[in-house]
Amino acid sequence: MSSDAIQPFYAMEILARAQALEAQGREVCHLEIGEPGGRPAPRVLAAVADCLERPMGYTSAKGMPELRQRLARYYAEQHGVELSPERIMVTMGSSSGFILSFLAGFGPGARIAVTRPGYPAYLNILASLNLASVEIPVSPANGWRLTVGDIEAAHARAPFDGLLLASPANPTGAVLAREDLAAIIACCDRLGVRFISDEIYHNLNYVGGDASALEFSDGHIVINSFSKYYCMTGWRIGWLVMPEDLIRRAEMMAQSLFISASSVSQYAALAALDARADYDARRDEYATNRLILAEGLQALGFKAAQPADGAFYAYVDASAFTNDTMDFCFRMLDSAGVAATPGIDFDRTDGHKYVRFSYAGTRETIERGLERLGAFLKA
Amino acid sequence: MSSDAIQPFYAMEILARAQALEAQGREVCHLEIGEPGGRPAPRVLAAVADCLERPMGYTSAKGMPELRQRLARYYAEQHGVELSPERIMVTMGSSSGFILSFLAGFGPGARIAVTRPGYPAYLNILASLNLASVEIPVSPANGWRLTVGDIEAAHARAPFDGLLLASPANPTGAVLAREDLAAIIACCDRLGVRFISDEIYHNLNYVGGDASALEFSDGHIVINSFSKYYCMTGWRIGWLVMPEDLIRRAEMMAQSLFISASSVSQYAALAALDARADYDARRDEYATNRLILAEGLQALGFKAAQPADGAFYAYVDASAFTNDTMDFCFRMLDSAGVAATPGIDFDRTDGHKYVRFSYAGTRETIERGLERLGAFLKA
Repeated sequence: MSSDAIQPFYAMEILARAQALEAQGREVCHLEIGEPGGRPAPRVLAAVADCLERPMGYTSAKGMPELRQRLARYYAEQHGVELSPERIMVTMGSSSGFILSFLAGFGPGARIAVTRPGYPAYLNILASLNLASVEIPVSPANGWRLTVGDIEAAHARAPFDGLLLASPANPTGAVLAREDLAAIIACCDRLGVRFISDEIYHNLNYVGGDASALEFSDGHIVINSFSKYYCMTGWRIGWLVMPEDLIRRAEMMAQSLFISASSVSQYAALAALDARADYDARRDEYATNRLILAEGLQALGFKAAQPADGAFYAYVDASAFTNDTMDFCFRMLDSAGVAATPGIDFDRTDGHKYVRFSYAGTRETIERGLERLGAFLKA
Repeated sequence: MSSDAIQPFYAMEILARAQALEAQGREVCHLEIGEPGGRPAPRVLAAVADCLERPMGYTSAKGMPELRQRLARYYAEQHGVELSPERIMVTMGSSSGFILSFLAGFGPGARIAVTRPGYPAYLNILASLNLASVEIPVSPANGWRLTVGDIEAAHARAPFDGLLLASPANPTGAVLAREDLAAIIACCDRLGVRFISDEIYHNLNYVGGDASALEFSDGHIVINSFSKYYCMTGWRIGWLVMPEDLIRRAEMMAQSLFISASSVSQYAALAALDARADYDARRDEYATNRLILAEGLQALGFKAAQPADGAFYAYVDASAFTNDTMDFCFRMLDSAGVAATPGIDFDRTDGHKYVRFSYAGTRETIERGLERLGAFLKA
């Protein structure tokens, strides 16, 4: 692997600069991190306090049976899908889910397609594991949605073995319609491409329900996490649904690569699945934030700032103000105290024109951020 | 990677069978798992209850600054080594430490040497990551200790790029004398081999203090964990000390591969470092168990059963009773209710003659286990 294929997360560099400013007594509006500001629901915290009385050893590599059974019930309730708990593996956030998916699902030298823009860790994980990535560009003209035509054209140019796709997407918030997801999976089946459905922004959808890849096929990989909707980023807990042909191999790899996910976090996750009313209430707050942020950014002159359907990000075109959003973001942070992420994190080719603002924080943060941003752009 | 290079953990298969027997109402003496029976110290549990009031988001990829500073102080206090906290990375158990060490420290196709017998995950992780492993046999005649002569001979036969070595070792409990560790590191320097010192059984040494590789060199990798001495297996928390030339690369990989270790577990780990008196008291219990187990196994006719210097395992020669310890272990579990791990987990060549018994449980478990084992062998 060439070392320079691996890039830092610029969101993290921005966060570090913001924290340095805060250490000097400055106050910063944090719109840079894809992390909900809220704490886990009260019943989650109560479950953790309870479980401190119980043994906290390793669990089985696939996770606690009761959590895997509860996740199977989630798919029955939310998606009408009957699923054996045997296909479910509890992971340390989606992060170890990606690693297991790539290593169990593909051999050395495999090529995995992802969208550009997309979650930056995809490319870095693939490069770290010495797998090749293929970027398929998506554009604002189509609401940043990947199409069957895009996939077929990219595969005809240079075939790939896997396709990793998130809906809702980071950084764009793009959501695939149910029939479009079904068509993409059928296309992957036709091409002999293993589909990896990154569903970690599920339940953060402001226009309707999210379709799971499991509704259309048993042959692909689904990745999910408690980080976003369940506000549990720092708990490092997520899950995978594996197809039958990969589950034993993935389990053996997990035994050695990870042993098991954190026991405390597994207890917390089990409680979180019964606290959906609390988390739905938070989504309603994001829904308000989403409209305030979109309206504010449009009023300030950002292009492509119409609100996206899901996740908690606005990925907007800042070319009216700059052709170098990395510089723009550092200046905006230093002079206005507003932290946002330069598009280069998500798109090494065209990202220099874009900025990602997160609306996972409070309404007050967003309103104050917009006010400061207005003053900054005027100056 | 050939799929059959990855083997299951037989200890886990034994555990699963034991749990099935328990579900039928049988009572099992658990001597199979390398996991302390005790709970974390009271101040650790108190710290966790406290931290539930604080934000629990991602930490920086290298871990909370206060934990890294505290770990640096640990090296000053225990080993007289001054270390920049910048070289320390908090990891999700030693597991993610191994992954980062292999990926950051070595390129594709690199060859890493390990001892045989050894921790089975080493070979499985290397195979999963498409790296090659070289096994260097160690023998009971030399107390299962690796020597400079062994390394030089193996390297002359087929050069390797890295050497991963644990002291105290799993499954043998072998501990290297300070001067022998120094000589091995000097040998690696001479040969241009990167040394990875697995120090996760440090502080579980019944004959003296443990030397850290950091006492002899700044150029190698040290892996450690809160799982064993600190009784925090299920918390999935550990750390790495990286040499200067690898730290930035390892940090960028960690940002994408893991994001950060669990925040709750980081708070717990910080408290654990101040609870060493509690954990020393537990080590004193293991010290008693160690002698009871060794004496009992010798009396029953196991060979090579003299107590090892560290960790909490007895790795004994069962060839007086069987030439197939996998079968022996399943029979011992089914008919006597004693769970132990077949040597094949640790040594795919000669392990069929050996059994690993763990003495990390209670004295009562060990005494009952020996009694049942005696009856089983008579029958």
